[in-house]
Amino acid sequence: MKKEAIQHFNTEEYIYPVKRNELVFKIRCAKKDISKCILVYWDRTKPENQKKQELKCCYRDRLFDYFQAKIIFHQIARYQKYYFELTDSSGNMMYYTANGLQQVIPKSGFFEYLYVNGTDVITFPEWAKGVIYYQIFPERFCNGNRGNDPEGCKPWGTLPDREHHMGGDLQGIIQRIPYLKELGIECIYLNPIFEADFNHKYATTDYFKIDSQFGTEETFRELVDTCHSYGIRIVLDGVFNHTGVHFKPFQDVLEKQEKSRYVKWFHINHYPVEPSHHNYECVGAYKWMPKLDTSNPEVREFILKVMFYWIDHYGIDGWRLDVADEVDPSVWVEARIRIKEKYPDKILLGETWGYAGKMLRGNQMDSVMNYVFRDALRDYIAEKSISVTEFDSRLNHMLAYYKDETDSLLYNLIDSHDTERFLYLCREDKTLLKLAVAFQILFPGSPAIYYGDEVGMTGDNDPDCRRCMEWGENADKDVKNWYQKMIQLRKNYSCIQSGSFRTVIADETTDTYGFVRKDETGSCYVILHRGTKNCKIECPVLERGVFAEVLSGELLREEDIGEAEFLNEDITEYKGKITLQMEPYSVKVIMSSSNSGKKQ
Amino acid sequence: MKKEAIQHFNTEEYIYPVKRNELVFKIRCAKKDISKCILVYWDRTKPENQKKQELKCCYRDRLFDYFQAKIIFHQIARYQKYYFELTDSSGNMMYYTANGLQQVIPKSGFFEYLYVNGTDVITFPEWAKGVIYYQIFPERFCNGNRGNDPEGCKPWGTLPDREHHMGGDLQGIIQRIPYLKELGIECIYLNPIFEADFNHKYATTDYFKIDSQFGTEETFRELVDTCHSYGIRIVLDGVFNHTGVHFKPFQDVLEKQEKSRYVKWFHINHYPVEPSHHNYECVGAYKWMPKLDTSNPEVREFILKVMFYWIDHYGIDGWRLDVADEVDPSVWVEARIRIKEKYPDKILLGETWGYAGKMLRGNQMDSVMNYVFRDALRDYIAEKSISVTEFDSRLNHMLAYYKDETDSLLYNLIDSHDTERFLYLCREDKTLLKLAVAFQILFPGSPAIYYGDEVGMTGDNDPDCRRCMEWGENADKDVKNWYQKMIQLRKNYSCIQSGSFRTVIADETTDTYGFVRKDETGSCYVILHRGTKNCKIECPVLERGVFAEVLSGELLREEDIGEAEFLNEDITEYKGKITLQMEPYSVKVIMSSSNSGKKQ
Repeated sequence: MKKEAIQHFNTEEYIYPVKRNELVFKIRCAKKDISKCILVYWDRTKPENQKKQELKCCYRDRLFDYFQAKIIFHQIARYQKYYFELTDSSGNMMYYTANGLQQVIPKSGFFEYLYVNGTDVITFPEWAKGVIYYQIFPERFCNGNRGNDPEGCKPWGTLPDREHHMGGDLQGIIQRIPYLKELGIECIYLNPIFEADFNHKYATTDYFKIDSQFGTEETFRELVDTCHSYGIRIVLDGVFNHTGVHFKPFQDVLEKQEKSRYVKWFHINHYPVEPSHHNYECVGAYKWMPKLDTSNPEVREFILKVMFYWIDHYGIDGWRLDVADEVDPSVWVEARIRIKEKYPDKILLGETWGYAGKMLRGNQMDSVMNYVFRDALRDYIAEKSISVTEFDSRLNHMLAYYKDETDSLLYNLIDSHDTERFLYLCREDKTLLKLAVAFQILFPGSPAIYYGDEVGMTGDNDPDCRRCMEWGENADKDVKNWYQKMIQLRKNYSCIQSGSFRTVIADETTDTYGFVRKDETGSCYVILHRGTKNCKIECPVLERGVFAEVLSGELLREEDIGEAEFLNEDITEYKGKITLQMEPYSVKVIMSSSNSGKKQ
Repeated sequence: MKKEAIQHFNTEEYIYPVKRNELVFKIRCAKKDISKCILVYWDRTKPENQKKQELKCCYRDRLFDYFQAKIIFHQIARYQKYYFELTDSSGNMMYYTANGLQQVIPKSGFFEYLYVNGTDVITFPEWAKGVIYYQIFPERFCNGNRGNDPEGCKPWGTLPDREHHMGGDLQGIIQRIPYLKELGIECIYLNPIFEADFNHKYATTDYFKIDSQFGTEETFRELVDTCHSYGIRIVLDGVFNHTGVHFKPFQDVLEKQEKSRYVKWFHINHYPVEPSHHNYECVGAYKWMPKLDTSNPEVREFILKVMFYWIDHYGIDGWRLDVADEVDPSVWVEARIRIKEKYPDKILLGETWGYAGKMLRGNQMDSVMNYVFRDALRDYIAEKSISVTEFDSRLNHMLAYYKDETDSLLYNLIDSHDTERFLYLCREDKTLLKLAVAFQILFPGSPAIYYGDEVGMTGDNDPDCRRCMEWGENADKDVKNWYQKMIQLRKNYSCIQSGSFRTVIADETTDTYGFVRKDETGSCYVILHRGTKNCKIECPVLERGVFAEVLSGELLREEDIGEAEFLNEDITEYKGKITLQMEPYSVKVIMSSSNSGKKQ
């Protein structure tokens, strides 16, 4: 037994409630080391009444297998003692307790889960599970009202720099809602729209006003209502880590210095405070964006006031929270409690660039911007700097690291206003972009489309990734078609929306990756060939009979599995295999014949 | 390289600030696998300016080595990218990043630490570091006022049952403060004293009143003031997970049922609420102690009001929080922010029986009741159900699992009002008790003495462990002497109060355990012989010259280390060894000759 690999703690990462009477247990073991993993558990007051439950290996990365099981109790889960009974492939059995691995079952030292409090339960807005996002950078999406164009506005389509404006506004977005509806979008994430400096509007001056360059509060109300009338939700960008220097409280500090009642709202390093001296904490190195001291309960109350204001008065569907991982976590703990109490259906979506362990324990965010996902796609599909094995390992690690419930809500992007366009990373190769898009939309979670990607827009990192939306003839119809096809597949098949995930192929020789999404309606096999040559590949399948490749309409018959060796060959459910001919940079999407699509 | 063992995440367990410009980095590797562990780090805006810092292996358990290092920055620590460069004993080097181990340094995928917010910093009351606690169960410590004895009070010394009273009170404690001072006590932890049902007073009826059986608010004020005048601190028991049925809001629910404004203060399963139907959530199976719904912000405010009240008006030094791990964590997050803002010097000490990962991340408790420590001593010293190797492994695991700063604050008990007396577990063998006490008091952390242990009191679990304090001739002078001697050692040597810890001996053949405490004033070697035979043991030492065994006054000369093999033989600092003759169940406490005791 590879003892060092085995890990479980009594923390939210390894044991958590999905209802007050339902607990998920997770344990990590070495890859292919443990053939049987049993949870033994009992109420501490009834040790004679022990129960057992086998855990299933759900994810596998380079080094580890990740086992999990869900247990339903008759009442609120409480006072549960437990340990794990592990059998390795040589038949050795050991017992894993709070004191580590034991040769014999000890008298004490078991794990214990105490009590499921109301707010311990992992809850999230049901609508957000697998929802299709569309991110809009308002300055560059559509100019619907020439009347509010700022002075010195450049003609639509000018290549962007950091200073100039192009005139995009809320009226423009309103006009394009039918376009988004037709594309299949279900939720808009809008970059900042409150009164602020700079064309990106991340240097807020007034959190209760719409920037006049984008419209009025009434235009915003019309936007929200129009979205909702089309069945599209809308999430705003909450920039609470920092403000602009023209934010009134900061101006008050500049004016009154030590005497300002707002000195504790910021991190002042020394006086006199003066932007040219850069003597206060800023976000990054941007002296025009002073950091709020979010550890200050008064600042926290201000943030909560803003968060409630736009929900209470305009009915927005939630907040995307800018650099959420730089803000004091107590802000999010409190925001979650208070907002979810009144509005359980509003989403809290944090920005982070790495693993969001701290924000996704269940007491802060519902979801995060999943740059870990984006980095894996960049490295494997666009840049080919990692092998398909490494790609698979990263994805499985990511899915295992988060809770399954969170996986289905992750904001899976391939680019944003803060990165190069994915097509740019692909050196303008649209077949590679299409591979990535198929992957993004058919993978578990919420695919997030950055405006213009769907018409083949390109661009280097900021400011070049913020070009004006291409509404004219240069909009790539083939790419848009592909997006719509993938979105339709997602909408037509519940197994793609919310089915389980398992890797079925990660073949370095041909450079092919395949995974299956499965629910009670059937299975969908997604096979991506990243290689540059035609190849033949065998894909194991979980059902017998005929399969349909939905992009070509081709029918495939399941063959006897024979002597074939497959990844995850310990999935004893494999019933057979299908043989596929793959062209370079191609995708196949294969449905089991019984697949009825929608759940009953 | 044992890859599965290597672990670091960007969470509070592995990276945390001790000041706003000081970060501690921790990483776990397989036991004796990694010979060199280097942190490579840089400001993300200055990738050309990389720095390196070697991490030191500070703890070692059965399976793992735990490396750590502290890094000081010129300003608030922020935007630090990092990875680890690991070299194994065969000279193989690998790079550990957020994407796991890499053969070559990748272009991206590094860990990142973003920003130290004010409340992220691990802070704690300086006085609590290594403080010596004394736990008093008020009903049984001393009867100082016959006037407030409850009806049916039994004579002092009657064996306890669950119903009866013996008359202990606050006046009695006041009378005994000189006794505690003489013993060397620095902080009293008092079991509940608010108006409540039952002799244990865990079923609170009024959180703002002293139970009349114990005295009045004025008696309590006198108690706090007397303690403080003797330089002794006092911590109260905060029972906020549940109340008594006679608590007014619960009585209101019983009276008005669904119409009570307090229905959301409790977890009501169905109506009509009625104690005999047991149709509300209780702590354990005690229907007379209904659980408060601590997820309810109104209840949280009530708890905070109580916590502040006794600090604001009586100047208590902090709270021991009953079944803290059953209470909604948001209560403690908020309590910490609000209390520490006004009173950074007050302690928050949570009750838990296992590993307190969730409560000790830095945003809730300062410390916890360390039953993990007690269990290890019970299993090794009292019951001898584990080997010395396992004992050592558990201790190192515990110290490594918590932060060093937390280790020095842990409430290290050997028994309490909720367990058997340690002497009882030793089958009344006082030499074994003395072994445990020496260990408890000389180990890192805060030794916590349960009233009466110091005079050799015994007793089975509740109610028998709550016998009346032995003030008469049956008080064991030899045991008390031993306590005082150990406490004096602790007070006389700063290396025992706050020095580092390292195991030096864990020898199964002789059944001997030894550890060293070290700071800049010198070292102290504590050697415990749990075996039943005389033995000779070699102890490695970090200094040259002469050593003094302080219990006997014996002088020991360091010998050449020769070919001897020692535990942790990779501590290259070993300068020699000393040879010890150990009698059964004996302890030696050995000081390096240069040991000046106190820090300058």
